[in-house]
Formats: sequence, C-alpha cells, structure tokens
Amino acid sequence: MDRLIDAINAKQNPSVVGLDPKPELVPAPIVRDLFDEVYEAVESQDVLPTLMASAYFAYNRAIIDAISDIVPAVKPQIAMYEALGPAGIDTYTMTCEYASSKGLIVIGDAKRGDIGSTAAAYASHLSGLPDMSVYIDGAQAGVLDQHVRLLIQDTSQSDQWFEDMLTVNPYLGSDGILPFVQAAQSHDKSIFVLVRTSNPSSSELQEIKDEHGKPIYQHVAQLVEAWGSETIGVHGYSRVGAVVGATHPQEGILLRSMMPHTFFLVPGYGAQGAQGADVAGMFDKQGCGAIVNSSRGIIGAWRADCDAHKLQSSTMDDALAFVADSARQAALDMRDELRMYVYR
Amino acid sequence: MDRLIDAINAKQNPSVVGLDPKPELVPAPIVRDLFDEVYEAVESQDVLPTLMASAYFAYNRAIIDAISDIVPAVKPQIAMYEALGPAGIDTYTMTCEYASSKGLIVIGDAKRGDIGSTAAAYASHLSGLPDMSVYIDGAQAGVLDQHVRLLIQDTSQSDQWFEDMLTVNPYLGSDGILPFVQAAQSHDKSIFVLVRTSNPSSSELQEIKDEHGKPIYQHVAQLVEAWGSETIGVHGYSRVGAVVGATHPQEGILLRSMMPHTFFLVPGYGAQGAQGADVAGMFDKQGCGAIVNSSRGIIGAWRADCDAHKLQSSTMDDALAFVADSARQAALDMRDELRMYVYR
Repeated sequence: MDRLIDAINAKQNPSVVGLDPKPELVPAPIVRDLFDEVYEAVESQDVLPTLMASAYFAYNRAIIDAISDIVPAVKPQIAMYEALGPAGIDTYTMTCEYASSKGLIVIGDAKRGDIGSTAAAYASHLSGLPDMSVYIDGAQAGVLDQHVRLLIQDTSQSDQWFEDMLTVNPYLGSDGILPFVQAAQSHDKSIFVLVRTSNPSSSELQEIKDEHGKPIYQHVAQLVEAWGSETIGVHGYSRVGAVVGATHPQEGILLRSMMPHTFFLVPGYGAQGAQGADVAGMFDKQGCGAIVNSSRGIIGAWRADCDAHKLQSSTMDDALAFVADSARQAALDMRDELRMYVYR
Repeated sequence: MDRLIDAINAKQNPSVVGLDPKPELVPAPIVRDLFDEVYEAVESQDVLPTLMASAYFAYNRAIIDAISDIVPAVKPQIAMYEALGPAGIDTYTMTCEYASSKGLIVIGDAKRGDIGSTAAAYASHLSGLPDMSVYIDGAQAGVLDQHVRLLIQDTSQSDQWFEDMLTVNPYLGSDGILPFVQAAQSHDKSIFVLVRTSNPSSSELQEIKDEHGKPIYQHVAQLVEAWGSETIGVHGYSRVGAVVGATHPQEGILLRSMMPHTFFLVPGYGAQGAQGADVAGMFDKQGCGAIVNSSRGIIGAWRADCDAHKLQSSTMDDALAFVADSARQAALDMRDELRMYVYR
C-alpha cells in the first residue's frame, strides 16, 4: 500500500480512473478503422471479439497517455474484458502492462474469492505463475530436460497479469483471503476486500444485524483490519485495504474510525451519484487513507462534450484524441474537486 | 437446470468431475514432450505459461475422453487456469468447448460477483458477446461498413466461454445476481450461488446469526430461492442453484427443506473429507436435487495408483493413458457409491 500512497502524494491526487470499456463508450470510428487489420489477422469466428478487444486497447491506451501525469493509478474492471472472452483477457493484461509502463499503479478489479488452494491459484494474479517445483525437486523430478528446468526456475517473467493490487470478495472467510495476503506480502503488492459496496441491494446481506445489533459489513471490517495487521507499512496502512462505497458517507466515517490501518478504495463517485463532500469522511486527518474511483465520468466524458454523431466523419486518431482530451479534463476536474474536500 | 437433471438421469449419476489442473497433478512426461512444439510456436517470454497451458489441455482432454460416458457434467475451476495468465484462459475455454462437444454439461466455477452493469458484463459468460447495438441503431449508428454491421448482428458465434452454468457470489445482493438470472433465462443456462461453502472459515461470515437467531447463510438461502422463483423448470428446480458444501451434512438437510426449488452443487466430497452418507441429505426424496463434485479424487487418482517416479520413463501418451484409466475407475467408484446412498 506504501507504493500507492507515495504515488498519491507525489501527484497530490487521491483518485483512480476505472478503465471499464463498453461498446457504447468506444467511438465507432475506432472500430471501423481497426477492422481490416483484424480481419486479415485472425480466423473468421474470432474477428468480432478480436476487433472489439483491439478497439478497447486503443481506447485504453489513449486514455492512459492522457491521464498518466495526473492520476496515481488505474483500475481496469476485468468483467468488461471477460465479456469479450479470451481476446478480451489479452487486452486486459496488455492494458495493465501498458499502464504499469507509464508509471501507474494498477488495481485489478476482479473481486475474486474462493477457498484454500483455489484462492492460492487466484493469488497468482499477484504472485505470478504457480509453483512448479514438483518438476524440479519434488515427486516428479528427473523427467524434464535441463533447459525446461531452468525456465521453471527463472521467475523473472512469471508475472502474467501486471496488477499491483487486486479486489477480493470476503464471503468465504479467512481461507479465501489469507492466500492473497501472503502473495501480497511476498511480492510487495496489496488487496482490497469488499466491505460495503456502493449498490442499492448491498443492504440485503451487508446490513443484516447480528444479535448485538452489529451489521455484517462491520464484522467484515473487523476481519479486514485483522487480516492486514501483520503487513502495516511506513504510512500506517496495511496491505489489506477495503472497498467502501461512496454512496454510504456516514458509514464511511464510522468505518474510517473502526479501521485505522485499512486503506479505502471508494467506488461510486461521479456516475453513481456521490460527490466530493460524500467521500471526505473516508480520509484520515492527514488527507490520506483513501482513493476515489471514477470510471464513466472520466473515460466516457467525451460523450458529454460532444454529440456522438459529430464523430461519425472522424478518423480513429481524431476520435481517440477527442476521448483523451475529454478524459484528461475530467480527471483534472475530479482531482481539483477532491483536493478541495480532502486536503484542507 | 432441466438439461443438467436430464443428463444426470440419463447416466444415473449425480456427480460432476472438477477439472482443476495444477502442476503436481500433471505428469512431467506431458510437459516434457510438449516442449519442443511450444518453444517453436511462441515468443520466449510466453514459453512457460503456454507450455503449462498446453499440458493442462492435453491432461483435461484425456480425462474428458475417459469419463464422458460416465458423468453428466464437468466443472473446470477457472482459478487454476487464471494462474497461468491469458494462455491459461485459452485452455479454459478450449476445455469447456471440448467437454461440451463430448455431450457434457459445463459448470464454469468462477464465483464471479459484481454490481449492475459489471455483473451484466460477467453474465456474458452465459449470454455471449456484449450488446453492440449502439453501432447499429444507437447513438453511434452510420459509421461502420455494412459487413461489420452484419458481423455484429450475427450472434451465432457470440459464445466465447462455452459454459452452461456458472457459480456466482452473493455478497453484493440482488444487483449482483439478477443480471446472471436474466442471462441464464434467455440462453437456457443456469447459475449456482454460494450459500454454504465447504471450507473451515466459512463460519466467519456465513454462520453469524441475526437478531432472531437466523444465520446469514439461511438469509442467502431465502434470497436464492426467491431469485429463482420465476425460472422453475419441468423437474421442479429453478435456474438459480446453490453451492452447499458436503462438509455440512446437517445444514444440507435443513437447506434442502428450506429450498425446495433450488438445485444444489455440492463440493467437498472425496479429498475434502465428505463421503456418500454426508451428501445423501442434500437430495430430495426422488434422489434428485443435487450434484456432487469431486476434483482431485478423480483427476489425481493416478497418484494413488502408482508412484509418480514410475512414470518417469513413460511417453506423454502412456502418462495420459494412465491418468485417464485411473480417472475413469475413480469416476465409476464415485458413481457407484453415490448410487448406493442416493437412489435407494
């Protein structure tokens, strides 16, 4: 978490841009101009998903270039890429790698969660390829040639996902979280656990009160604070953060005091309705302790700035420049609003 | 859910094989013999993940061939494939497609969960590529050439995942589930919602009692029964099933009575310790209502049948045949044990 906090401090900007592409956000000229190249490169049944995946990458790259000097981090939502199948996953990892190469912290919004060895497999998002030592000195040693063994022992190219942080789901309890904490600790990475989500029906489970009147999300909050307790960094925050929706400002203030070592990832700003005043209570007295996400408000800002019909006669490059300029301005506006409420 | 129940009835076997490959389960001769081909086909930094992904696919295919006449379904755990990065995702979808081509129902064990439009994006696992009508008759119409528009309108190749069913996580409430229910309903597919998981720490959240003494997992159970209520099929079960761990047999009996229209996916059999007697109560009086998963007990059965060292001098084909024979015998044994306890 220290790396994220350092990046926020360096840019004086506690915001993160959600890279959540959808067809309606990607201008049609991008899709049009990429078609010929894709059509020649892949088999016919792969043309449409590969075309959209290529368009998503061009769109993301333009946005990343436009905001990388303003924001400390990006948060690609993997669901949007999974919607395109394997071609979309390629774009997801390429996006993470590209953002990382531009000096941005990458928060993979995957909300993964499972138990034991399955959670450990998901934790490969942070720790790299699974342990293959069984082929080196385990029960299956002695079969592979020397060059394959060297390949397995060389972990320098192990990272397949290029994420610095990952969101995870707490429903399965500690068994589902501790493998991620371990991977985070050994690879200088972090996680964010869902505590209080920003959606209306989050109340159905998260607000159920126990026999003492304490709601479930506060139980999760206590677990999260405990899961991180051995990993507190120089800024006082652990490697186990919490997702706390901006649409619950009062609960955010309460959680801030309940979770003094837990950094918050705050969705729900902008398109979901919350504003600067709603998130101010998620921060600590030094203006640290949280990062606020906006997705559509940044990456789809071009739609508010012009009628989509006006882009019809644009080239792909013109459309990308338009998307980028609007995203940059929206990112600056968000930064300035947050600075006003947070750094007082 | 009807398709799954029909398949179970046809094979008189309420079991599903978890296709959860890991390095320690895949005999080294497979990795060795695939190396040269992979080394020539991909760039150097992709050799190791592609090699393991290729080995996983060869291993899965051998197992699928060996069990497809015995079991009604397979359940690949996507975490194991994500651990290899994008190359692993390719193997995941190839495995799903291959299993489907062999007449097996494919349960994608992905435990996805998010809100609103993000949940809808994840639901593309069931419903195919996202809606691109914005380019046809929406705000961005008129830019794409006719052949691209036709490509978008042709939904016959839309399925990128080849899953019939998907596991999902309920922590975000209805907002996170209903998009999956809708996708399932319109594409003759189904979902399984985590209710009571098989791991020890599942108690940390799932057993917390509300002010009336009702534990959280029973709240989830009621939500699940309600979410499925409009989708009940000819066998009396809805498209919204529940994951109920075999390690909680008493709770399974209770949940069976609380959730009369909810089909159960039951993990925890075999390697996790539960046996036939533990799962009997998950079934209804007709011996329907549940399917029991075993992963390592089937796909890793070869390790109990021989010392791994004995495979050292085998060819890949010999090793695959050994894996397949052991898996087939273990699948037959599991079927026969379940028949004894379930079809009485």
